[in-house]
Amino acid sequence: MAKVTNRVLIFALGGVGEIGKNMYVIESDDDIVVIDAGLKFPEEEMLGIDMVIPDITYLLEHRDRVRGIIITHGHEDHIGGLSYVLKHLNVPVYATKLTLGLIDAKLKEAGILGDTKRILINSESEITLGSMKATFFRTNHSIPDTVGVCVETPEGYVVHTGDFKFDQTPVNGQAADLAKMALIGERGVLCLLSDSTNAERPGFTGSERSVGEAIKDVFNRAPGRIIVSTFASNVHRIQQVFDAAMLFNRKVAVVGRSMVNVINISKDLGYLHVPEGVIVDTDEINKLAADRVVILSTGSQGEPMSALTRMARSAHRKVDILPGDTVIIAATPIPGNEKYISRTIDQLYRIGADVIYGGHGPSGPVHVSGHGSQEELRLMLNLMRPKYFIPVHGEYRMLRMHGVLAEQVGVPEENIFLLDNGDTVEFAGGKARYGPKVHSGNVLIDGLGVGDVGNIVLRDRKLLSQDGILVVVVTLSKQNGTILSGPDIISRGFVYVRESEELLDEANRIVTQTLVKCMEENVNEWSSLKNNVKDTLGRYLYEQTRRRPMILPIIMEV
Amino acid sequence: MAKVTNRVLIFALGGVGEIGKNMYVIESDDDIVVIDAGLKFPEEEMLGIDMVIPDITYLLEHRDRVRGIIITHGHEDHIGGLSYVLKHLNVPVYATKLTLGLIDAKLKEAGILGDTKRILINSESEITLGSMKATFFRTNHSIPDTVGVCVETPEGYVVHTGDFKFDQTPVNGQAADLAKMALIGERGVLCLLSDSTNAERPGFTGSERSVGEAIKDVFNRAPGRIIVSTFASNVHRIQQVFDAAMLFNRKVAVVGRSMVNVINISKDLGYLHVPEGVIVDTDEINKLAADRVVILSTGSQGEPMSALTRMARSAHRKVDILPGDTVIIAATPIPGNEKYISRTIDQLYRIGADVIYGGHGPSGPVHVSGHGSQEELRLMLNLMRPKYFIPVHGEYRMLRMHGVLAEQVGVPEENIFLLDNGDTVEFAGGKARYGPKVHSGNVLIDGLGVGDVGNIVLRDRKLLSQDGILVVVVTLSKQNGTILSGPDIISRGFVYVRESEELLDEANRIVTQTLVKCMEENVNEWSSLKNNVKDTLGRYLYEQTRRRPMILPIIMEV
Repeated sequence: MAKVTNRVLIFALGGVGEIGKNMYVIESDDDIVVIDAGLKFPEEEMLGIDMVIPDITYLLEHRDRVRGIIITHGHEDHIGGLSYVLKHLNVPVYATKLTLGLIDAKLKEAGILGDTKRILINSESEITLGSMKATFFRTNHSIPDTVGVCVETPEGYVVHTGDFKFDQTPVNGQAADLAKMALIGERGVLCLLSDSTNAERPGFTGSERSVGEAIKDVFNRAPGRIIVSTFASNVHRIQQVFDAAMLFNRKVAVVGRSMVNVINISKDLGYLHVPEGVIVDTDEINKLAADRVVILSTGSQGEPMSALTRMARSAHRKVDILPGDTVIIAATPIPGNEKYISRTIDQLYRIGADVIYGGHGPSGPVHVSGHGSQEELRLMLNLMRPKYFIPVHGEYRMLRMHGVLAEQVGVPEENIFLLDNGDTVEFAGGKARYGPKVHSGNVLIDGLGVGDVGNIVLRDRKLLSQDGILVVVVTLSKQNGTILSGPDIISRGFVYVRESEELLDEANRIVTQTLVKCMEENVNEWSSLKNNVKDTLGRYLYEQTRRRPMILPIIMEV
Repeated sequence: MAKVTNRVLIFALGGVGEIGKNMYVIESDDDIVVIDAGLKFPEEEMLGIDMVIPDITYLLEHRDRVRGIIITHGHEDHIGGLSYVLKHLNVPVYATKLTLGLIDAKLKEAGILGDTKRILINSESEITLGSMKATFFRTNHSIPDTVGVCVETPEGYVVHTGDFKFDQTPVNGQAADLAKMALIGERGVLCLLSDSTNAERPGFTGSERSVGEAIKDVFNRAPGRIIVSTFASNVHRIQQVFDAAMLFNRKVAVVGRSMVNVINISKDLGYLHVPEGVIVDTDEINKLAADRVVILSTGSQGEPMSALTRMARSAHRKVDILPGDTVIIAATPIPGNEKYISRTIDQLYRIGADVIYGGHGPSGPVHVSGHGSQEELRLMLNLMRPKYFIPVHGEYRMLRMHGVLAEQVGVPEENIFLLDNGDTVEFAGGKARYGPKVHSGNVLIDGLGVGDVGNIVLRDRKLLSQDGILVVVVTLSKQNGTILSGPDIISRGFVYVRESEELLDEANRIVTQTLVKCMEENVNEWSSLKNNVKDTLGRYLYEQTRRRPMILPIIMEV
């Protein structure tokens, strides 16, 4: 029997209600198309975790229908989960040239480059994904080669903007593809998914070109060496740093692994234009006059192990910051990093460097956002004129505000869907409604472990981080249960042992007492013994210190 | 022999190069005067620490000369360390009425209220501190009864501003004491110590009264219940909330321990004017119509255990947030708290509340800073016209910028001293220079422990928080060194045991092998055995997992 109706589901496995780990899914009865596969940096309470990726259980359960993963651009929150995903779900990956260059480096590192079908697209491509088709449109963002996606589904056109701003004076001269977007809108958009990052910010986001002007102005006035720290992936900004360096006849040394990587890839692929001889080895810079040197560095977020932070702490292997240096931190803090950056800035000032940072420098902003503000979000909505709207890529209040903006330009309130990860919108017969929830979640990556750390482990780490641990070791006789050795108490992360001898001596007495009492009362199951020790000792320590260290009783029997 | 020269030292034991734990010292040959005794909230890497206070070793070594502690106002970063300091250094405390009320509550809790000499001052007081004299001047700040101090030393007048702004339309009608400040300036100021918190912020800080107007506007439009969250100590703002409640005929329920405390103290001392019947019990509010209710709450920083956060998580014992509620968060994030506040705002929106927050609400700012911006700092400098200038109360870049402002209004660069805690400025014969460094530092408070947690304990907590701990237990025979029981490996915060049985089994084999090998090679010193186990096991686990858990080998001998 032929199917009477089509049904299209749209949902996020990551990226709504959060910043990071973007992964959006468009599903028809026959086919599944995935857009992006990003990572997220861990929340504060995820102790010891390196990164977080989306749980793709749902995709694995429907793997036969997954036709491919389209990547909108090369930022970590859009490509960082890809090598983990592809290990379990080997499907074609579609991306533009620079994006693919960055992806390839990751797949190579993961040892799966050869096994992955990678398909180069550009903004003119049209690709077929089972019963669905995808076309693309160029947008502006803080990394070149960013595209939005228009997917033709059995129910109509679904547009995903990717990350975007409208830069009217882009550094590479390639403005957003306004005409194409307008045509897509004219043809009729069933549903728009649009970037909500700056939905709370009024007005327009500044042009990347203005950053170049500010940088030139700082270069013009800097008496000594110049250190510029920015996001490694912001190739346009890096180009402008090189342009300024050449204008003022300075050489550039590149510091920091990711900065070196991205510059190499961008140069190789033709996204960064640097004549021979401009880039010098870090060993060379000490041979040059101070006013002939630029150091281009990672660490604009004040990350403790980054190049700039190590230079500021005079702990970098090759480069020191010197009095008279001018440091440009061409970034603003990602929420959560404010303290790190402040600390770095303070250290740089202490050394005697001048520091130019953030959006309000004396020469103008040395950073602008890569995401469109409210006017640009309204402009996108007016270009696309979607029937339904799903704000994506943002925390809840951003999605909500983006919904308000959509209402303002005429999308009916009931046609706006605010989703959590796993919530679905079901389109059938031209109508949309909330569909069944699908499985979604966080997969935590810690070292080589993917998903082997969960709530219990994190809870233990939290406990250990607050008050440390006491290990109580005692050996009992198999024959009569008397104490053969111990109790010995070993503490880590609890108190200075030297200053707390009395406390630990008394703790020892209390454990001995507890055990003897248990023996007398014939409590000799190990679990009961252990619980008795834990309770009595825990109570004593809390009374004395108001701390609750983890207590780990170890009872040996010989 | 009579002394020929006097010498005055000025230094900070806390408060420069940091925000918090303010403690400034003015020392002559015969006498020491202390200004403020605050606490600081722990830095991110101070795991498990509750708060930080200044190390007062120097004061204890010179206790005979310490004449008293002057407190400028009742904020925690100025009074929070007082009960710890007074336990070791029982000297008189000088403070204004509200400040003393807040101090008394602390001393009572610490059980030292009866033992402490507390002296009430007002802006007209003149107090004698050995050979020095102190007078006061009224300033504006985000808590009432804030004063600046002018200390007459053998070398001249030293002025400490305390925390201040110039509010031209203060809520209580009491503007800053401009005439008195001008007179002090006319008489001649040797050295000014001034609040640097907002030295990076151009212009003037807004008046507290503007917050009242914004709050009234929100009240005027709110359809249902109103929840206002702000700093408990901002009595003027709390007054304005009560005023708005009375204007719109709403009752007020107060939630959160510190909010209840401060309101009680302020009412008792006449700083807060609330007619009978306006405040109702939280149990009462469910009996009132939604548009008759205001809930005044702590938690404006999104602190995980605060009243507002618990309400937002629907985890508060008595009060739920309901759809249609309007929540005013009358605060901006203290650096480090951005993520907490964002999370709280998201949760409130999810429940269906409207949220008004920060400095850019639709009704105008619902928060203004308590600290003066650049124009106010310049105004203070121009009023005082000091010979020497020490910027205080701020991180290094703020102190530095405050120094730049001082230069702009005519203080010679060489007369500006940027200090770290413990750095001294020595005044003799009308000249100033850097003096000998004095001991300073952080004392960490964890539960009841004061200073019993230091770098080693913190380092262990950090390690434990990242990758957890493995305890390896083995019992050896005293006679021949053979393994009698174990090795047993117990892990906490490392991996899910169920998913890693193989890993831990192999770890077990490796420990056994290592021990057997040691025995064969006659390595039988315990420290060597332990190090061998640590090294071999650590290497294996790092290879397998890229993690470095703490390894604690425990070898028993029976």
